[in-house]
Amino acid sequence: MTAGLALIGAALALVPSAQAEDGYDLWLRHAPLEGEALERLRIFAPRVEVELYRGDETPTLAIAARELDLGLAKLGGGTVASASGAGSAIALECGSDPAGAGEYTVRSNAKGIAIGGPGQLSCLYGAYALLRELSQGADPRSLDIVSAPAMPLRMLNHWDNPDGHVERGYSGRSIFDWWHLPERLDQRMIDYARANASIGINAVAVNNVNATAYVLEPRYIEKLARLADAWRPYGIRVFLSARFSAPRELGGLETADPLDPAVRAWWADKADEIYAAIPDFGGFLVKANSEGQPGPQDYGRTHAEGANMLAEALRERGTVIWRAFVYSEHDETDRAKQAYAEFIPLDGAFADNVIVQVKNGPIDFQPREPFHPMFGAMPDTRLMLEAQITKEYLGFASHLAYLAPMWEEVLDADTGHGATVAQVVAPVGMAGVANTGSDRNWSGSDFDQANWYAFGRLAWDPSLSSEQIAREWAAQTFSRDPAFVDAVVPMMLASRQAVVDYMTPLGLAHLMGTGHHYGPAPWVCELERPEWNPCYYHRADADGIGFDRTPSGSDALSQYAPSVAAHWSDPEAIDPAYLLWFHRVGWNHPMRSGRSLWAELVARYDSGVGEVDRMAQTWRGLAHYVDPQRHRAVSANLAIQQSEARWWRDGSLSYWQSVNGLELPAGTRPAAESLDHYRSLSFPEAPGN
Amino acid sequence: MTAGLALIGAALALVPSAQAEDGYDLWLRHAPLEGEALERLRIFAPRVEVELYRGDETPTLAIAARELDLGLAKLGGGTVASASGAGSAIALECGSDPAGAGEYTVRSNAKGIAIGGPGQLSCLYGAYALLRELSQGADPRSLDIVSAPAMPLRMLNHWDNPDGHVERGYSGRSIFDWWHLPERLDQRMIDYARANASIGINAVAVNNVNATAYVLEPRYIEKLARLADAWRPYGIRVFLSARFSAPRELGGLETADPLDPAVRAWWADKADEIYAAIPDFGGFLVKANSEGQPGPQDYGRTHAEGANMLAEALRERGTVIWRAFVYSEHDETDRAKQAYAEFIPLDGAFADNVIVQVKNGPIDFQPREPFHPMFGAMPDTRLMLEAQITKEYLGFASHLAYLAPMWEEVLDADTGHGATVAQVVAPVGMAGVANTGSDRNWSGSDFDQANWYAFGRLAWDPSLSSEQIAREWAAQTFSRDPAFVDAVVPMMLASRQAVVDYMTPLGLAHLMGTGHHYGPAPWVCELERPEWNPCYYHRADADGIGFDRTPSGSDALSQYAPSVAAHWSDPEAIDPAYLLWFHRVGWNHPMRSGRSLWAELVARYDSGVGEVDRMAQTWRGLAHYVDPQRHRAVSANLAIQQSEARWWRDGSLSYWQSVNGLELPAGTRPAAESLDHYRSLSFPEAPGN
Repeated sequence: MTAGLALIGAALALVPSAQAEDGYDLWLRHAPLEGEALERLRIFAPRVEVELYRGDETPTLAIAARELDLGLAKLGGGTVASASGAGSAIALECGSDPAGAGEYTVRSNAKGIAIGGPGQLSCLYGAYALLRELSQGADPRSLDIVSAPAMPLRMLNHWDNPDGHVERGYSGRSIFDWWHLPERLDQRMIDYARANASIGINAVAVNNVNATAYVLEPRYIEKLARLADAWRPYGIRVFLSARFSAPRELGGLETADPLDPAVRAWWADKADEIYAAIPDFGGFLVKANSEGQPGPQDYGRTHAEGANMLAEALRERGTVIWRAFVYSEHDETDRAKQAYAEFIPLDGAFADNVIVQVKNGPIDFQPREPFHPMFGAMPDTRLMLEAQITKEYLGFASHLAYLAPMWEEVLDADTGHGATVAQVVAPVGMAGVANTGSDRNWSGSDFDQANWYAFGRLAWDPSLSSEQIAREWAAQTFSRDPAFVDAVVPMMLASRQAVVDYMTPLGLAHLMGTGHHYGPAPWVCELERPEWNPCYYHRADADGIGFDRTPSGSDALSQYAPSVAAHWSDPEAIDPAYLLWFHRVGWNHPMRSGRSLWAELVARYDSGVGEVDRMAQTWRGLAHYVDPQRHRAVSANLAIQQSEARWWRDGSLSYWQSVNGLELPAGTRPAAESLDHYRSLSFPEAPGN
Repeated sequence: MTAGLALIGAALALVPSAQAEDGYDLWLRHAPLEGEALERLRIFAPRVEVELYRGDETPTLAIAARELDLGLAKLGGGTVASASGAGSAIALECGSDPAGAGEYTVRSNAKGIAIGGPGQLSCLYGAYALLRELSQGADPRSLDIVSAPAMPLRMLNHWDNPDGHVERGYSGRSIFDWWHLPERLDQRMIDYARANASIGINAVAVNNVNATAYVLEPRYIEKLARLADAWRPYGIRVFLSARFSAPRELGGLETADPLDPAVRAWWADKADEIYAAIPDFGGFLVKANSEGQPGPQDYGRTHAEGANMLAEALRERGTVIWRAFVYSEHDETDRAKQAYAEFIPLDGAFADNVIVQVKNGPIDFQPREPFHPMFGAMPDTRLMLEAQITKEYLGFASHLAYLAPMWEEVLDADTGHGATVAQVVAPVGMAGVANTGSDRNWSGSDFDQANWYAFGRLAWDPSLSSEQIAREWAAQTFSRDPAFVDAVVPMMLASRQAVVDYMTPLGLAHLMGTGHHYGPAPWVCELERPEWNPCYYHRADADGIGFDRTPSGSDALSQYAPSVAAHWSDPEAIDPAYLLWFHRVGWNHPMRSGRSLWAELVARYDSGVGEVDRMAQTWRGLAHYVDPQRHRAVSANLAIQQSEARWWRDGSLSYWQSVNGLELPAGTRPAAESLDHYRSLSFPEAPGN
């Protein structure tokens, strides 16, 4: 019998796919329009016109025009003729400043569309904005967009080591091929710049804050210069993470004391050397006296003395970004208090070209933390927000957790000092720890692309809602069909709370496995540094659970403005999301839900697990809208997340039960395995460690 | 002034490319045919017909048909109608054995083309063969191909650690995403299987021979089973590198003594556990008592006793591949002699399902070595050839070195025992250490894809010439234009000798930097293990250079058959390519060229450098035939190779001069830097270490 291939169905998952999408194109796919939107574009018949002001090169304009040409061709699906003379003009009419802040207008007019602004970068950002709108099906005849960046520095921090390992990276090897630079500039470096520029990111620290000194060697400056040249037309400035002890390690000095004249001279020379190669070098990002990194305190100097020394070396040419992520094993106070305690006395002491970079919360990128008390409390210091795009504590690359709601929560928080966090950092900027890697989809999972996208969009405009960003992203990345968008966006919006619920509900934090930060390990209590132990954070015993940060405990609450502290000081009145962060309560503590704390805790774990099940079900129903390769990949991740959400729930509950001796509420599903089983699991090969 | 984009030329290297190719499609691009070839295909109007023998699934046939459908559609460039009923039939008519050895026929007939053979795999291999021919422009009406594999095992060995690091990997992170298996099977795993099947590779050892024990844990067996299921229809069997001490590390036993009953039982149980999950599991690959790895000698047992114990555990179900790459720091004889000395006495002692895997040469994958003396010398042992596709010693991923001529040299070598190396290993197989990684082009450079391709093709048919393989590969990978193929193939064929010349000419070996194996370091002489020092190999002093392996020296020559040894025993008569491998001679030793050894050495270095310059020039002239992205990437690599060839030449010559006090021959370019400079270079971030 002879039969066509259609009869052989079951094996098809194994065969090569004709229209495979691997996610490399990110949100810049520009999938062909359909129906009315396509018809509108066809009638509009766009042609790109570039206004040249000078005879010399204008690479940023060239890129903008080329992006429009390519993007429009893709949106037209080959059916929109590239008109010459006829049709509607898309005119790039921007000022001659090769960069500029990037504010732009995109306006439909009688002749077509004008993209304008004071500098060349306006045209690039405007071109991407136009494509973003058209990709979502907007009518090219009725555009009237005026946009300007809310903050000057919109930055990615890469925790990428020069050898290719990415600390807390879950998407393969580093995207930076330092080994072959400067001779070989990988196409990925251009595509990376495109992606960043399309969402307004304008600064990149290329190496891990746990820095090696050798990136300051001449051979690396050469490599970095090649990157800087490639990224400049995209409006991206490069920064280096600098190791504070480099004058000893590279310079052969006996000290790195920031007040030592030889040290100051070494850094000044190094800065001059860098600026000779990279005239618009951004500056240094520094992790000092934190988790074993060298710093000014090694010589009895303050953070300000350290930062200002580097700032002097950079002069007006660049910026020192000094991280406030510090805590000490010898400080017996609450770890959550230490950054504030160290930095607040230094308010006003930092040079003008120093920025202090503050994580969103006072511990470390947990699924939920209250905002960091430093925001609003250092009026004479330039503060920048540091967020984490890579999901170190939110399930690595496989868990679907859309982070915009978390960042929105922080940005919108009222510091009680007369400004929201967004308002505090608006004059400075935001940095996000990147989630990129060598995986073909860049971020390890298709949905983690949304976090890169959302970070850029929020840094450009923190007033954008998580929902709007999700809609934009989903439409461009997967399908602009309203039925798809309406189904997938609610799932994205609920996803971060789901992670909070199945990992660390009700204000719990830092309960993950040691080192790799993978999976539940609330039982860990024997690490040498007390504040690395999960038990340090949950303080659970037979009587209760939670960290007392009220005046009867560590009094971390007092670091917040009184109006804010008042909100959180009463365990009855506090938002339950922060309860165990600020309060230690009994297992039978009555919750507003009517349940005991214990029953509420169990309900939250179950709620997180249930939400992931719903996400998986929703996604199964969306196969029609997504290419098989990416649909399959997301489904596989959701299956992992379903299983790991249960692991978190069961491992955590088993441990709490071993401490409180309580039964699970009636009708609750028992843990699948014994506590001993969960404690026995080990993952020597976990990524990102 | 308004101007079109065409005016902005200089910046174009920075902008996104419309028709970018990133190399991911390898030799399976099936670029649209043109001219007569396209017309022939159009007239032929192929339609794929599958003969189904049973009602149940035939995944291999489904894949073969799908590959033909996709490949023909691509070759037709959208202009060849997918006929239904009309046109010529491509009939897949294979036996019902789900696998089979894979011998196939591809024959044109009155109805079209018939692909046939005794098992389903015949149709898969035949389909790839047909596409290979059509891609090169063959006439579909006149095909008559009969082909069968020359050896049963055509294998890739991956030195990939489960954490993603690839030992001696120069193309990014491991392609194996163990972390997300078994739930998530990356599309790369299917595309990898396609690529392998298309060149006849049928076995894969998925993890590093420096193995971790934990890959034998149940969670890894589950992961491996998912891979095995995915690869089975492509005719690929999975092997694991097994750590000999696993019974202690995983099993909690106090010994891993192969004669201990508990140890034997542990391995037997482990094998049963694996076979329950993977019925066609290939077996274990073992590096034992080599470079610090555990092995039977730790318990006073022989390699045969160790291998046979594992073979018993596998029973008739699978194979133990036991590596002969052994040498000891405590053995004061020549390292080149040690594997032979350890293994020859064991001839006949290995169980039937044990294979001894022997590297091509007696040291370690150097740019040139004489063939390994074990070949032909163990008539009662199944010997397999191990080659290295990844270029640990040949310039990593950036140097263009086409390795088929090296392998051809070894395969064609007459062992003097009545057979060539190819004939010795034909009943068993060939293994290649893979060069794959997470880079978008798989192998770190476009030309390194040729080495993967050539390895597979040679393992299928060692009688294929390097030139034919290069022609096939270049036509499928870049352009089938004869002008392109005629230019690029000679460049490929000359490339390996160029590397030999600028790195280790005239039989020198093992002169690279310590640890990372990058760059020249003939001066290294202080390492603790004597045989890890370059000076151990070159033995240069004021009087001369070279390793005396004649009876007056280590007598390694005596390990070769007398007829072979005779060829190499006379420093006057020996092929100069092997001179310093076997002989220590004075710097003024007269060469057949008429030059002194010293002058000849300098000339060889210069010849290597000059050849690379010619390669770069040739490639510059080929821009017309290759997409800009890949052309640029290859050009960048060639620039690196030009610079590094000079580094090898200059660093080496500076050192030899410091030893022999000789001037460079008149007219020779002096070294660019001082010897101290070359000695000072350090590369802590070198890949693959």
